[in-house]
Amino acid sequence: MKEIKLGVIGCGYWGPNLIRNFSENYHTDIKYVCDINENRLERIRLRYPHITATTNYKNILKDNDIQVVAIATPVHSHYNLAKDALEAGKHLLIEKPFTSKVKEAEELVELANKKNLMLFVDHTFIYTGAVKKIKEVISSGGVGDIYYFDSVRVNLGLFQSDINVIWDLAPHDVAIMDYLLTEKPKSVVATGASHTHSKIEDIAYVSINFKNNLIAHFHLNWMSPVKIRRIILGGNKKMIVFDDLDPADKVKIYDKGITLAKTNKKTVYQNRIQYRIGDMYAPNIDNTEALKIMVDHLADCLLNKKTPITDGESGLRVVRILEAAEKSMKKGGIKISL
Amino acid sequence: MKEIKLGVIGCGYWGPNLIRNFSENYHTDIKYVCDINENRLERIRLRYPHITATTNYKNILKDNDIQVVAIATPVHSHYNLAKDALEAGKHLLIEKPFTSKVKEAEELVELANKKNLMLFVDHTFIYTGAVKKIKEVISSGGVGDIYYFDSVRVNLGLFQSDINVIWDLAPHDVAIMDYLLTEKPKSVVATGASHTHSKIEDIAYVSINFKNNLIAHFHLNWMSPVKIRRIILGGNKKMIVFDDLDPADKVKIYDKGITLAKTNKKTVYQNRIQYRIGDMYAPNIDNTEALKIMVDHLADCLLNKKTPITDGESGLRVVRILEAAEKSMKKGGIKISL
Amino acid sequence: MKEIKLGVIGCGYWGPNLIRNFSENYHTDIKYVCDINENRLERIRLRYPHITATTNYKNILKDNDIQVVAIATPVHSHYNLAKDALEAGKHLLIEKPFTSKVKEAEELVELANKKNLMLFVDHTFIYTGAVKKIKEVISSGGVGDIYYFDSVRVNLGLFQSDINVIWDLAPHDVAIMDYLLTEKPKSVVATGASHTHSKIEDIAYVSINFKNNLIAHFHLNWMSPVKIRRIILGGNKKMIVFDDLDPADKVKIYDKGITLAKTNKKTVYQNRIQYRIGDMYAPNIDNTEALKIMVDHLADCLLNKKTPITDGESGLRVVRILEAAEKSMKKGGIKISL
Amino acid sequence: MKEIKLGVIGCGYWGPNLIRNFSENYHTDIKYVCDINENRLERIRLRYPHITATTNYKNILKDNDIQVVAIATPVHSHYNLAKDALEAGKHLLIEKPFTSKVKEAEELVELANKKNLMLFVDHTFIYTGAVKKIKEVISSGGVGDIYYFDSVRVNLGLFQSDINVIWDLAPHDVAIMDYLLTEKPKSVVATGASHTHSKIEDIAYVSINFKNNLIAHFHLNWMSPVKIRRIILGGNKKMIVFDDLDPADKVKIYDKGITLAKTNKKTVYQNRIQYRIGDMYAPNIDNTEALKIMVDHLADCLLNKKTPITDGESGLRVVRILEAAEKSMKKGGIKISL
Repeated sequence: MKEIKLGVIGCGYWGPNLIRNFSENYHTDIKYVCDINENRLERIRLRYPHITATTNYKNILKDNDIQVVAIATPVHSHYNLAKDALEAGKHLLIEKPFTSKVKEAEELVELANKKNLMLFVDHTFIYTGAVKKIKEVISSGGVGDIYYFDSVRVNLGLFQSDINVIWDLAPHDVAIMDYLLTEKPKSVVATGASHTHSKIEDIAYVSINFKNNLIAHFHLNWMSPVKIRRIILGGNKKMIVFDDLDPADKVKIYDKGITLAKTNKKTVYQNRIQYRIGDMYAPNIDNTEALKIMVDHLADCLLNKKTPITDGESGLRVVRILEAAEKSMKKGGIKISL
Repeated sequence: MKEIKLGVIGCGYWGPNLIRNFSENYHTDIKYVCDINENRLERIRLRYPHITATTNYKNILKDNDIQVVAIATPVHSHYNLAKDALEAGKHLLIEKPFTSKVKEAEELVELANKKNLMLFVDHTFIYTGAVKKIKEVISSGGVGDIYYFDSVRVNLGLFQSDINVIWDLAPHDVAIMDYLLTEKPKSVVATGASHTHSKIEDIAYVSINFKNNLIAHFHLNWMSPVKIRRIILGGNKKMIVFDDLDPADKVKIYDKGITLAKTNKKTVYQNRIQYRIGDMYAPNIDNTEALKIMVDHLADCLLNKKTPITDGESGLRVVRILEAAEKSMKKGGIKISL
Repeated sequence: MKEIKLGVIGCGYWGPNLIRNFSENYHTDIKYVCDINENRLERIRLRYPHITATTNYKNILKDNDIQVVAIATPVHSHYNLAKDALEAGKHLLIEKPFTSKVKEAEELVELANKKNLMLFVDHTFIYTGAVKKIKEVISSGGVGDIYYFDSVRVNLGLFQSDINVIWDLAPHDVAIMDYLLTEKPKSVVATGASHTHSKIEDIAYVSINFKNNLIAHFHLNWMSPVKIRRIILGGNKKMIVFDDLDPADKVKIYDKGITLAKTNKKTVYQNRIQYRIGDMYAPNIDNTEALKIMVDHLADCLLNKKTPITDGESGLRVVRILEAAEKSMKKGGIKISL
Repeated sequence: MKEIKLGVIGCGYWGPNLIRNFSENYHTDIKYVCDINENRLERIRLRYPHITATTNYKNILKDNDIQVVAIATPVHSHYNLAKDALEAGKHLLIEKPFTSKVKEAEELVELANKKNLMLFVDHTFIYTGAVKKIKEVISSGGVGDIYYFDSVRVNLGLFQSDINVIWDLAPHDVAIMDYLLTEKPKSVVATGASHTHSKIEDIAYVSINFKNNLIAHFHLNWMSPVKIRRIILGGNKKMIVFDDLDPADKVKIYDKGITLAKTNKKTVYQNRIQYRIGDMYAPNIDNTEALKIMVDHLADCLLNKKTPITDGESGLRVVRILEAAEKSMKKGGIKISL
């Protein structure tokens, strides 16, 4: 028998993926789905006749069998739904971005801690084979000191009506950065532009400075004629390119870089920099669906009292950067300290 | 007989390319080459025994036969050499970047105007078949209103000892932007980092805001494991990708974009945006060496009293942006008005 | 009410795709599925509880409501199943390759004609947006005289246990060739090799000569470290590259080629050939699932008494080439006339 | 002082590259260049005023100082020139293909042996860093038993007036195959077509069977809209892709393949094949100009009495395959034993 009973709130774009993966997991048992849109519920009912479909999420909260509530609604509704669920004593899975304000995220983290409930943020990319492999390489010291983290996520569409391109696309890459790097960001500068009547920015550039000479940058664009999803991560030992759209070799590890000759004498500058151009290596990547691994991890955390890799704290750190980036962008690119 | 006599100062990396192209042009006759490094001069003498090689550029300036002086020295020396040459009544070709300070560029432009001498800045990319083709498409109205100009120029090396990555790499792309766009930049924000003892930045991100909703961005990096030289230019009618490293299809023109339904009624946002995903077209590009075309244009300007496409004013506009970008970067990413 | 009642025999790899598409079509109503493997039937029952699942295909044949039988079993069983179905008065959809022998295919075509029943071979690729677009370009005269058809379909796996790589992979590309070209093949030469104990060839090269100077070639390989699915088609007016793995631009049409100066005088050979290197154009391709379009076409053929694009004759033409290619390969590459 | 005096016959497309490399080598001293075309000689004279330019190659042969003659003329003239040179006691460098007939190649090899003179065939690709690296991997046992050698060399142009596409393009890839593989070819099958009045084939497919289950194949095409130069080499331990047009990673080594379970029991076929999908590795490749390395090797062979890697025997083996392939193609694809 599946031990973990849960309900899913929100059956739009991502909810059905959660439902499918919860159904296929050996520990999780979906008892409820909820959406305010009846058509969406109808589609779920056809495929999963045994699940109770409701338009009122409170029906889920008051069922004592339910241990976990998964929230896959638009971000502006996360805070209220999450607060209600936590107060009803439910563990939580929340879609990214965690909340639309730092204050809300802080409150939810605090509340979950107080009530000793799990707060799991669905930063799905953290559970991909590619990101896991990169983490291993970094953790083993293979990359050395990290110099930069450069991310591009651009495509034509899908324009959102309630959030701008930063809140829509950056959570993926900022969460990956947060997972891979241990350094703390110091300040954010962001610029962007809107090209529709909505004034919602469809293109944005976010730059993050750290205490040392590490720098991170995010290019986010809903209006690109070509689709690019690529992270370049440079270190003093190795450099990594993660191209999520390369079907064959998603992660390439380059033995390239510069070597700084250690010398006290005053020598000509050029002589001190040596280029190292070595081999490239593309490790085989586990292709298991990331959402499946996320659900496995969620079940493991609940059953074995573990802390999720993508807990509320990590969700909060991501929201802090998104909020600062938006603020910088709205003011034309001023520098915001974190 | 070749009508235009000239001398070239600086025989390092780029100078020999100038010398070769001046030699092959039907109108230009190199009489002198100059460098403070005797080895470099020796190499030129071997290949061009008829050219006078000198370590003293003043020998060139005092020869009344010489109409044009080409300056291909490190940027910090441009101003003094250019000033001397103009005062000696010589027309000028100067390598990019024009000068290392706005003030210097302004002075040289003024001096050239006063003395009625030509100031030609070698923004070579402007003379490539690819950029020319893009200009044609834009000029004919094919792109429509331009939404963004996004440029990436990254590679491993070549670290410069006297200038940072902005001054080294951005002149190419800023000059292309200056040539393609008619809008005037309003403010600059730049961030960057150095990873060597020299404190010279090897990675930088430069963002430019314009008066309307146009935005430009430049990613410059000497420390990338992969080489990328790509500009994406989005407009409301067409979008263009210029990939300088694609040997087959450098310029791709996409009939892609969004269409904003014109409506006064308050309708749901999603309904107002329609995606247009049409054909892609890669025009055949003229592969003539850009430097050859530049030298042809220079000769044409001199012989027929034309203003160069890349005149002192365009050089000055580029330097303005570089100086502002560096200032922003040095202060950790503050916003600099132009 | 859905007018066309049908049964599907074979629920292995491809059968479920047929079942899904028949379910979603407005005209086709699956009443039966059949497989000798109970586990497979069980999986279908779970998803489609209203369909009768049987291990005995004769149950389908004796039901007078059934108009169409779809056969998605291993190729060696096609002939017997198809013959029984035709004799029971059923229209037929058969997976590719149509049969494992020319003689069988001829018999089935004759039998279907005699009984006035439809014989529809599922050459799915013919129903892709890409192949349809290429056909349009050729039909409109855009390609001119066709010079060659070069196809590569290679990958690691999936080794088949009953048929070699020609019978497994070539049906796709030979069917595409048969659909696109109007010329008749004259002779076949094929070479290949097996690298397993089974003696089943895992790599093969098939070359087809035509009456004029048209030539076709197929590279088929189960042992390639990289996946390639690409057809190059050269004509005297245009050349086309169809790269099925390119997510962005599957079909590229090149205005490239040679021009032969028309002259009776004996001139130097080089002067008579002129290279034409023009633009490239990548038309937007309809991404509708090919199987959906195939099922639509099947319903249209049945309801409106039309002849399928991929009828028994086309299936037979493909089998003729496969059989000749195998014969050539088995004899070490002798030339087989068609 | 440079010890090896030589003369170069043929100053067309490739000759100037030889001249440049001989000039830059520390051991080789070009004393003569020869061509029947005065314009070509004039161009050489301008760049190398110290070299004697002549239209009569016998002037070279009768100079006793000359040890080596390099022949870079059209292939039909190789035999006569080479024979004269050998009889005059000169060592020889000959461009690929060595000769246009097997009989000629045999005679020249015999004559050179008799006179104890070096016969060096310029199979330049053998001296590239990429081919050298592949040879190392194979020699160290890294690839295991070789299953296939698949080569594609296609482009638009350059149509030759005296030889077909096999003689023009295949020498490169056949020489690479000859260098990398130790197995002996058994039979050849080739097909092709001509699309010009000249009847010279512009597209050809050459397939070579070996004694064991090794197979080789060459796709050669002067009429392709896209340029491809790629060799795939499959072995039971590793598989290699050599993409000569990839500026970054020319050689990729894949830990991919199948594993055949060793069993005497009769088991289901599918269970016996296991797919191995491991990492990919792209070694850094030496980018030194191949011709420079070739000239170094030639000097080393002469000065130290070594046998060239690409000696007359290797040239002869290549010509044997070319001749057989042409014969097969001319007869519409019959099988020719070697």
